[in-house]
This record gives sequence, C-alpha cells and structure tokens, in this order.
Amino acid sequence: MSNLQEEMKRVKDRVDEVILDQLLPKSSPIKEVDLLYRMMRDYPARPAKGMRPFLCVTACKAAGGAEDDALLTAACIELFQNWILIHDDIEDGSDLRRGSPALHRAYGEPLALNAGDALHARTWEALLRNKPRLGLERTFSVMGEFSRMVNETTEGQHMELGWVAHKRWDLKEKDYFEMCERKTSWYTVASPCRLGAIVAGAGAGVLADLKEFGTSLGIAFQIQDDSLNLIGDEKKYGKARSDDLLEGKRTLILLRLLATASQSERDRVIGIMSKERAKKTESDVSYVLSLIEKHDAIGYARKRAAELLKDALSTLKSIDWRGDRESASLLAAYARFAVEREW
Amino acid sequence: MSNLQEEMKRVKDRVDEVILDQLLPKSSPIKEVDLLYRMMRDYPARPAKGMRPFLCVTACKAAGGAEDDALLTAACIELFQNWILIHDDIEDGSDLRRGSPALHRAYGEPLALNAGDALHARTWEALLRNKPRLGLERTFSVMGEFSRMVNETTEGQHMELGWVAHKRWDLKEKDYFEMCERKTSWYTVASPCRLGAIVAGAGAGVLADLKEFGTSLGIAFQIQDDSLNLIGDEKKYGKARSDDLLEGKRTLILLRLLATASQSERDRVIGIMSKERAKKTESDVSYVLSLIEKHDAIGYARKRAAELLKDALSTLKSIDWRGDRESASLLAAYARFAVEREW
Repeated sequence: MSNLQEEMKRVKDRVDEVILDQLLPKSSPIKEVDLLYRMMRDYPARPAKGMRPFLCVTACKAAGGAEDDALLTAACIELFQNWILIHDDIEDGSDLRRGSPALHRAYGEPLALNAGDALHARTWEALLRNKPRLGLERTFSVMGEFSRMVNETTEGQHMELGWVAHKRWDLKEKDYFEMCERKTSWYTVASPCRLGAIVAGAGAGVLADLKEFGTSLGIAFQIQDDSLNLIGDEKKYGKARSDDLLEGKRTLILLRLLATASQSERDRVIGIMSKERAKKTESDVSYVLSLIEKHDAIGYARKRAAELLKDALSTLKSIDWRGDRESASLLAAYARFAVEREW
Repeated sequence: MSNLQEEMKRVKDRVDEVILDQLLPKSSPIKEVDLLYRMMRDYPARPAKGMRPFLCVTACKAAGGAEDDALLTAACIELFQNWILIHDDIEDGSDLRRGSPALHRAYGEPLALNAGDALHARTWEALLRNKPRLGLERTFSVMGEFSRMVNETTEGQHMELGWVAHKRWDLKEKDYFEMCERKTSWYTVASPCRLGAIVAGAGAGVLADLKEFGTSLGIAFQIQDDSLNLIGDEKKYGKARSDDLLEGKRTLILLRLLATASQSERDRVIGIMSKERAKKTESDVSYVLSLIEKHDAIGYARKRAAELLKDALSTLKSIDWRGDRESASLLAAYARFAVEREW
C-alpha cells in the first residue's frame, strides 16, 4: 500500500471515530427515534475512501496547522457527503451505494429523505462545536466556507437533474464543465482543501489558489468517476455498472459521443437515453457502450482529465505553503490518484 | 381585523421583504440555475399566516429587545419552514400546498427535493448574517437553538412517518403527544419564541418557560390543525380536505376514535387507514369521517387542546418579561388564536 493510501486510511479512521463516537447519537429515550439514528449512522459506517477528510486534514497541515484542529471540520465534510448521497440516491433512483442497497431502498423514500435532512442539520450542529478549539472567528469562517460549498453543490445538482428532467441534449463541453465545477469540484476538492487551510489560518492567496486547484481537479475527478461508472469493476467501485446511462446522466463521455457520432447513431442514442430508467433494456445499454468504444469517447474524456490534472498540479506547485512539505507532496500524490484510480 | 391579525400581517410583510429581497437570490449567471432560484422563492412567496416570524419578533420585544434585531432570525425561521414543507410534501405525497400544487407536483420530485436542500443551506447562510448586528456570541446562540429546532423536528417527522411506514396502530395518546412535541411544538412555538428571546438577551429562566409554553401550545396547535384538516374550509385552510386520512396520519382524533369504537368499527378503520393513499376510496374517507362524528372524536380532541391552551397561558403569565407589556399580551392573544382559528 502506498504512502498516500495508508495516510488516507489513517485519517479516515480518526475521522470515523469522531463521527460515530462523538457526533451522531446512538440511542434515544424514544424507541422509534432509534431507527432514525441507525439510519443516520448507516452510510457513514459503510466503507468509503475518505478522500475529503484526507484533503481537509492534509491541506491544514500543509498550511501550517495542526491535524487535531481539522478533525472535526473533516468529520463535518463527511457528514455533508453522506446526507447529500442519501438524497442523491433518491433523486437518481439508485439501487446501490457503496456495495449495499441505497438507504431509500432499505427503508422507503419518506424515512430516508427525512434521515438525510436530520443528518444535514447535525452537520451544522457539529460545525458549531469547533468553537472551543478554533475560537469564534475561525469557527465562523469555517461555516461561511461550508455554506458556500453546499450552495454550489445544490446548484450543480440542480443543473444535472434539470438536464435529465427537461430532456436537454443541446449541451456543450462548457456546460458539463460548469455543472461539474458546482456539483463536484467544490465539495470534492476545493472546499475540503480550503476548509483545512482556513482552520490553519491561511490567507486569501492560498484560498484562491486552492479554489483553482480544486476546480480543475474536481472536474478531472468527475470525468474519471464517469469512466469508472461505465467500465469500472463493480465490486471495487461499489455502484452498479452503467448506472449513469440508466439515469440519463449527461457525462463528458456521452457529450463527446453525441458530437462525433453519425446522425443516425446520434438519434438512436438520444432515443435510448431519453427513456425512463425502467424502460431501458440491456441491449440499449450495450449499444450505447459499443458506440462509446467505437468513437473512443472514454479515451477522449481521459485526455481532457489528464490536461486538467496537469493544470491542477501546476497550481498546487505554485502555492506558498507555510506548513510541512510532506503534506504538500501528499496533496500532489492525491491529485494523481484522483484521476488515475480504478475505484 | 383584530390587533393580533394586523400585527401578524405587518411582521410578515417586513420578514417577506427580507427573505425575497435580501436572502434568496433572484438570478444566476448560469441560465439553468435560475429555475432553482425560482423554485426556492416559490413557497416563501405563497400566502401564509406568518405565525412563526410574528412569535419571534414579538417574543423579542416582550423580552426587551428591538424588532429590527429579530427580523433576520425571523426570516430564517420562515426559510426553515419552507424547506421542510417542500420535503414534507414529498414524504406525504401531498398534492396541494397553500392552495397551489405542491412543488414536487409542479417540477418533479428530484428537482423539488434538491430545491429543499438548497433552501436548507441558504437558511444557515442567512443565520451567519446575524453577525454584524448581534455580534458573534449571540449569533452563535441563535444557531445553537436553530440546530436544536431542526433536530427535534426531524425526529418528530421520523416518528410520524415511521408509524405510517411500519403500520403501527398500537399507539397511545402519550405517543401522539411525544411526536407532536418534536414535530410541531419546537418549530411552531417554542423555538420561534426562544429565538426572539435569545436575540433580546433573555436569561435561562425565560427560555425554560418558553419551552414549556411552546410545548403545550404546539400540541394544541397541532390538534387544531388536525381538526381543520378533517372538517375545515379547504379554501381558507389551503390544503386538500382529509389529506391526513389519505396519508394515514396518526392524529389524536383517530387514536381517540380507535380507543372508543367497537371492535368491528376499529378493524374496518384500521383496514382503510392501512391502504395505500391511491387505493383509498371516497366512501372509505366518508366512513371514517362518519365514525369520527359518531364518537365525537373531534370534540374530545378539542377539549384536550383547550386544556393545553390553559396550561400554556398560565406558563406565559408567569414569565418575568423585561420588555413591553403589549407584546406579552399579543403572545397570549396569539395562543388563543392558534387553538381557536378556522384556517
């Protein structure tokens, strides 16, 4: 196991302990509420890579802060990730999450939707607990960044869901990038890094650089995620293969296919992609996958991801860090992993 | 129009201005995101009584604070109320809200669910804006109470949804009261009042009294809401009549009916109430309503509400207010309105 993966696991274990032992209640005097608590603890207890807490803690150390100061904020990022996944799975009609049934499949949509809200509220409650360690001003700055992160994410999510709901196919690469910047970049890279840096007391220059780093890397990360969804190993990846095709997601790969396919191929792909999830057949999915291969749309998307990674690494290199060099190089190692990973 | 209603309208107008002019964005540089903003502004722009902002502002004045200091917090309570209604309407499968189609009926569930999340996040962002006027410490105390309020509400919501999902009918009055305390009392009365008092710098004694006042009045409010749902004027009330029966809600009225009905009536009511919403016929609903009338279950519930109102008024009377007496008596007038209202 590489140094990066050991470090991701080490941080994840520490953050999980904060989440499961300190932040999320275990039982209630009201018997019925116990189930809500179990539901809130469900996704956080499933296996996950823990990329975002790693970024938060590592950026904090690179910016000269102490790991212990960033743990609670890192845990809040995980809580955020978990409630948004619960709702995302309902919105997308997904069956699986991290290798097990999605929460709404296990407990029904009404209870799962509400459990996501409960977890969202607990996230803000937990952020308030930064006060004794970080002081009022810094706790406040962390919440300001957090609020930006949630706003951006819900806007990106709206764009993507809106394209599906309104059967939009007149989309360009630029639209995909704008959507990814909001849906993925902020909460997957930019804010986790910026939150760690804020905890460490970093200045506006570092924060601006981290936004740029996060924007490029987040889009590259999403492109890789889209590729894995189509051709990844289901066991490693933890989601059902080709779920994005069933959900009608507008990925860069699909937009590239539509831009390079013949008119008749294009019409057939749009016809298939516009069907409701339940009406898409296995041969529909195979046909789209065969065209993706024929037009090398994944190869193209990966080339774009590699370019974005290069930009991200060059931004990262230019940052004037005040903390330890090892953390800064771990961030670079992470950036490469995010784009080259197989899971 | 009574003094109370004029005052509720006056405060609501001021708070609506804050929400629609200052807190919720109107347009985005990204065209698709404009729809999200319109959706976020939809429920807040529909007609509503504005009870919660009134309570917040009036409790603030009764506790010796200034109205202007409470406006932003009152607006945040409205934002909270609006996002939770969006999600509540999805969870309950409701068709109407405030006389117009529920948000998910107008835009589909995925976009509506996400718009609720976006509004939730904007609520916390808005709470952060208290800082220049209230200072960091008090801004934090407001957020602490807010977080308690959302936690309680999601727990109460879970209890109610869980009873429906798990077909629970072995419920006592005590269970209903515990559920209402969480689902209704905190966010309808206790927290709006306590938030106003916190803005005014009230001490722990006043806050404890307001919790007690809010608990009793909130349950009484919910009982009246349940009655209006069954026999109220649909136009005034803004929701479809008997929606609670279709949704299978466990109201005090229904629990009373089950406790007093004959075994055969009881079995038939449970059979009807356990059907899925779409499978309940008009004659099912009429049958349950006729039994409710036969056993005077609404009369019984209203008697319980009147007792709770009496308790609430006696707690309110005992509060050692530091502010103006008129505000304190408006709170008492509101308490009576909440239980005696026809809409």
